Amino acid sequence: MEAAEERPRRRPAGLGVLALLCSSLLLNVLFLAYYYFLSPPSQLADGGSCGLSWALRAARDAEALAATDSCSGHGQVFLDGVVGEDGRPGCECNRCFDGPHCSIRTPNCTADATSGDPLFLEPYWKRHAAASAVLVPGWHRLSYATTDGLFQSVELENHIRRLHRAVGNAVVDGKRLVFGAGSTQLINALVHALSPDANAAAASPPARVVATAPYYPPYRTQTAMFDGREYRWEGTTAAAWANASRNSSSFIEFVTSPNNPDALLRAPVLRGSAVIADHAYYWPHFTHIAAPADEDVMLFTMSKPSGHAGSRLGCVATC
Amino acid sequence: MEAAEERPRRRPAGLGVLALLCSSLLLNVLFLAYYYFLSPPSQLADGGSCGLSWALRAARDAEALAATDSCSGHGQVFLDGVVGEDGRPGCECNRCFDGPHCSIRTPNCTADATSGDPLFLEPYWKRHAAASAVLVPGWHRLSYATTDGLFQSVELENHIRRLHRAVGNAVVDGKRLVFGAGSTQLINALVHALSPDANAAAASPPARVVATAPYYPPYRTQTAMFDGREYRWEGTTAAAWANASRNSSSFIEFVTSPNNPDALLRAPVLRGSAVIADHAYYWPHFTHIAAPADEDVMLFTMSKPSGHAGSRLGCVATC
Repeated sequence: MEAAEERPRRRPAGLGVLALLCSSLLLNVLFLAYYYFLSPPSQLADGGSCGLSWALRAARDAEALAATDSCSGHGQVFLDGVVGEDGRPGCECNRCFDGPHCSIRTPNCTADATSGDPLFLEPYWKRHAAASAVLVPGWHRLSYATTDGLFQSVELENHIRRLHRAVGNAVVDGKRLVFGAGSTQLINALVHALSPDANAAAASPPARVVATAPYYPPYRTQTAMFDGREYRWEGTTAAAWANASRNSSSFIEFVTSPNNPDALLRAPVLRGSAVIADHAYYWPHFTHIAAPADEDVMLFTMSKPSGHAGSRLGCVATC
Repeated sequence: MEAAEERPRRRPAGLGVLALLCSSLLLNVLFLAYYYFLSPPSQLADGGSCGLSWALRAARDAEALAATDSCSGHGQVFLDGVVGEDGRPGCECNRCFDGPHCSIRTPNCTADATSGDPLFLEPYWKRHAAASAVLVPGWHRLSYATTDGLFQSVELENHIRRLHRAVGNAVVDGKRLVFGAGSTQLINALVHALSPDANAAAASPPARVVATAPYYPPYRTQTAMFDGREYRWEGTTAAAWANASRNSSSFIEFVTSPNNPDALLRAPVLRGSAVIADHAYYWPHFTHIAAPADEDVMLFTMSKPSGHAGSRLGCVATC
């Protein structure tokens, strides 16, 4: 009887064990199935690529390099930096620092107050790393032309207009934008474009290119260097004004506002001259913006608002 | 005896089931533990970022766009393309195709044989997608200067020298490299650099810029456009040769080899002239390379060897 009584008690326990076993086995099968078939491709198939294929290496290279951070806060490692013995780019040190980790102060190094470098904007871009990273595929823009057969990026143009509208520092609606490799390249392009044609039938005398002192020296050095037959560097507006009655030639006046180097807001002083309004510094982090600038020819550059001096982009907004 | 015999037989079976159950449960625990604790960070902790943080979005954007491939093979989607109503860049169609997917053939579209576009190199770069992708961080090269305070990339220079050595089409050892926004920009820079100084005390007559017909038209149009006082466009070498005895001024001769437009290998024809050797097409996929070119001033461009016409990079190798 005891045995007989035990058996009915043991049978449900055995069934429970079997049920548990079946569930457990089923769970294992499900785990295995999930592991092999249902999980995202990142987990197994491609060794942790989280669904990325060709873009993964570039992304990892960039992050690995940025994470190095071995330049003591006085330098930077760049993807296209000079490769050292270990096969990786090394630190490029800021002025006055040296050594493999930029940790050695250069002795007797003095500050150069005659020019600047927009490196102070670096922390901003590092804070916005995800929003500002761009992955460029190897086949990017192989053609000479961009959208609709144009030679400049329509979307870049849209973004520049949106930026000026948002900041409120320039009226760009109804104006054309022309890009250059930095605004330096556009300085002579404008002088050339605003000068009379030296080969015309009734050739005018060359345009006289002037600026009010103190002015940004490349206006002079570049105009003198190109040495065109249509224009010549005439010096300061004061001298030009004194000689104006003796000469009927036209003026091209550089007006930099805020001025470089003295940061004053400037307006043209020679009546009737063609004006190149250089608004490189007309941004809220450099000056008060009284009203959006709205001259016929306005120069801007990427080195001042965003700090990308090394990427060489300038633009002219013109009627 | 039958019951007694049965029991010993059943007990091992029960033990077996129990052992199986324990193993299965242990496996369950292991799977769970792996799933929650041991799996790479990609799987759970950071939502599939496979260890990437700020570079992930740019990499995914680029791959997603490249995978769209909705342009019927007659166009391309670019990251900086014009954004449509769906917030994504649309197709930019090749010549003679139109519509949102570039699937509509433009009626009566004729081929333009006067100029080309290096789009035939696109399949090559797509096959080498991983090796050619570059992720540019937002703080890339903010400074005006690059490595060691120079204004051009030392590593780019190294790569260009390595490329020429590997291909064997130019001797670049011991020569300086100068970069420009395409070789077009360097054409006038060279004319300017090779001309005599118009402002020197004993000013020489302007240099006479010539080329043998048929020549690449921008030599003429650009030289004429800049209209410097130090040089002037003189036409073909044949005309220059005829007039040479009457004029003591120096010549600057453009020698394009292989020539554009007739693909002939060319050599200078005017003795004693300064030569600008334009080797844009001196690459094995365009011509036979008899020997590495070794002139004093050699022009190259990125649009011909790699097809990156839209990225605007040219270079001069000079002694």
